[in-house]
Amino acid sequence: MSTLQNRQFKLTSRPVGMVKRSDFEFASTPVGDPGPGEALVKVLYLSLDPAMRGWMNAGRSYIAPVGLGEVMRAGGVASVVASNDPSLAVGDTVVGGTGVQDYAVVKAKEVTKVDPRLAPLPRYLGALGMPGLTAYFGLLDIGQPKEGETVVVSAASGAVGAVAGQIAKIKGCRAIGIAGGPDKCRYIVEELGFDGAVDYKNEDVRAGLARHCPKGIDIYFDNVGGDILDTALSLLARRARVIVCGAVSQYNNHESIHGPRNYLSLLVNHALMEGFVVFEYAARYPEGMQALAGWMASGKLKAREDVIEGLETFPETLQKLFRGENFGKLVIKV
Amino acid sequence: MSTLQNRQFKLTSRPVGMVKRSDFEFASTPVGDPGPGEALVKVLYLSLDPAMRGWMNAGRSYIAPVGLGEVMRAGGVASVVASNDPSLAVGDTVVGGTGVQDYAVVKAKEVTKVDPRLAPLPRYLGALGMPGLTAYFGLLDIGQPKEGETVVVSAASGAVGAVAGQIAKIKGCRAIGIAGGPDKCRYIVEELGFDGAVDYKNEDVRAGLARHCPKGIDIYFDNVGGDILDTALSLLARRARVIVCGAVSQYNNHESIHGPRNYLSLLVNHALMEGFVVFEYAARYPEGMQALAGWMASGKLKAREDVIEGLETFPETLQKLFRGENFGKLVIKV
Repeated sequence: MSTLQNRQFKLTSRPVGMVKRSDFEFASTPVGDPGPGEALVKVLYLSLDPAMRGWMNAGRSYIAPVGLGEVMRAGGVASVVASNDPSLAVGDTVVGGTGVQDYAVVKAKEVTKVDPRLAPLPRYLGALGMPGLTAYFGLLDIGQPKEGETVVVSAASGAVGAVAGQIAKIKGCRAIGIAGGPDKCRYIVEELGFDGAVDYKNEDVRAGLARHCPKGIDIYFDNVGGDILDTALSLLARRARVIVCGAVSQYNNHESIHGPRNYLSLLVNHALMEGFVVFEYAARYPEGMQALAGWMASGKLKAREDVIEGLETFPETLQKLFRGENFGKLVIKV
Repeated sequence: MSTLQNRQFKLTSRPVGMVKRSDFEFASTPVGDPGPGEALVKVLYLSLDPAMRGWMNAGRSYIAPVGLGEVMRAGGVASVVASNDPSLAVGDTVVGGTGVQDYAVVKAKEVTKVDPRLAPLPRYLGALGMPGLTAYFGLLDIGQPKEGETVVVSAASGAVGAVAGQIAKIKGCRAIGIAGGPDKCRYIVEELGFDGAVDYKNEDVRAGLARHCPKGIDIYFDNVGGDILDTALSLLARRARVIVCGAVSQYNNHESIHGPRNYLSLLVNHALMEGFVVFEYAARYPEGMQALAGWMASGKLKAREDVIEGLETFPETLQKLFRGENFGKLVIKV
């Protein structure tokens, strides 16, 4: 194996503001051999996630930052090339933390086998992967949606938002999505079945949300933070729940982030804002996966991926994500 | 009765920034006669509350704003001078919404009789009144304190904060208070039994809280907002609860309020921030009053009032509150 060359993106500096190519070193190294309990896998698809930006920062968070000189952390779908563990055979398809590289040596118990016949492989990084589980546990566990409630989702055509809105519909709620541009807005209404869309690039978000949510917002599933969070807070219904899933608009700020100026809406409406990280629900992943796969099989849950070719595009592809230029779950085909 | 003169503060303009005397008209008018189901009361003590600032603003909130030309809203302790309802007799002492004036005509069913022998009258506007109930329901219902947890309270020598910290102690928690100046800090530790105090006027709040809360903050009872809320958010423990009770540092801002920049601490710590208004707990006031009075009688709950003489001082006395110059529950002796 050691004759194979492995291209890797290693983090070499902590980004200031928007992540850029010069924050990484892109170089080749021979692949390693799997030790006991490990496998060597060839990475097929890599997941691009807003959370990556946080992993590049120093300091305390829910997970250790990527160290300088280390391969950039990423989830991926991969094919087993060599195995030193009885649970994995050559040719098996797995999902797990592969890093941004061509090959990875992974611990067998830290990856999950998936069936490549059941869904297109990139979907295991989207609706049938961490983003889908994030939507599932965030909306159901924190949001506690009740039939007839109005659920607003930001970044609604994105990997997490699209699933959150569709689960809201499955649970009998009205789902309103916020997305950028007419194509994404049309997609979430016509393809995914949202009840309404607000195009934050082309209309006043407050007016749009007020029109679609005449009784206020019962659940706001936030992926973006910033001004859109402020606006949603100003329209909360009594006893509303704000799910803090992410803040993609804020991750590349040079200065401190923009805090939600309208947070006193929580006070006057007896509302709550609660955050979470999907990893905490690891023990319940099987429940979530079963539900998502079931809805997918029955046609109630649809998904879309935005596939970019080439490992070498990683820094620029990640920038697309923060600029909202992707349409659907963003993955790199390695 | 109509020969009695009633001095009144009427709101005549919506304040911009700090409230000031010229936002009111101070004039006399003959007192009215009580209609059926009403009583005429002489106001003895008036409650000065941070919430008053919000009532002066136009716009949607949990309660209608005070109209221009109307008597400024306030809670008070009063003595019945004339009654047109069988439930109230001349000489009875009542608590209720009297407004900032010498006399008020009140609806009998909208005031509560209190026993002047059980506690000093101003206490019915503090620890045994709305502030005490606010602390009680906020800490217990939203905070859900568990024995051994660390509870941090801002404005800890104030009417609400002092009760919240003492209830935290009663429930077996560690209570850390944030207050301004050595006298208030000494008071909350030595008199009220807090485990520690951080003097926000004379020390770094982050360093002080970090020292007193080595395992992080489990419950943060916030009365102030602004930078202190930011700091507390940065020190949350996992599954922490932030109780949004008030934001006295922000109510007089000329511009939009300062949103909590560290709100993503909710995400990484799976924490929640929840607001409330005490009026929602009206059905449970008897439960709260009974608990507070019981703790007071047994010496577990102590209180302090800051009594200013003279109705005519109202605008300047209210300014003292926003500058943190009061020490204990601020009331005016009419």
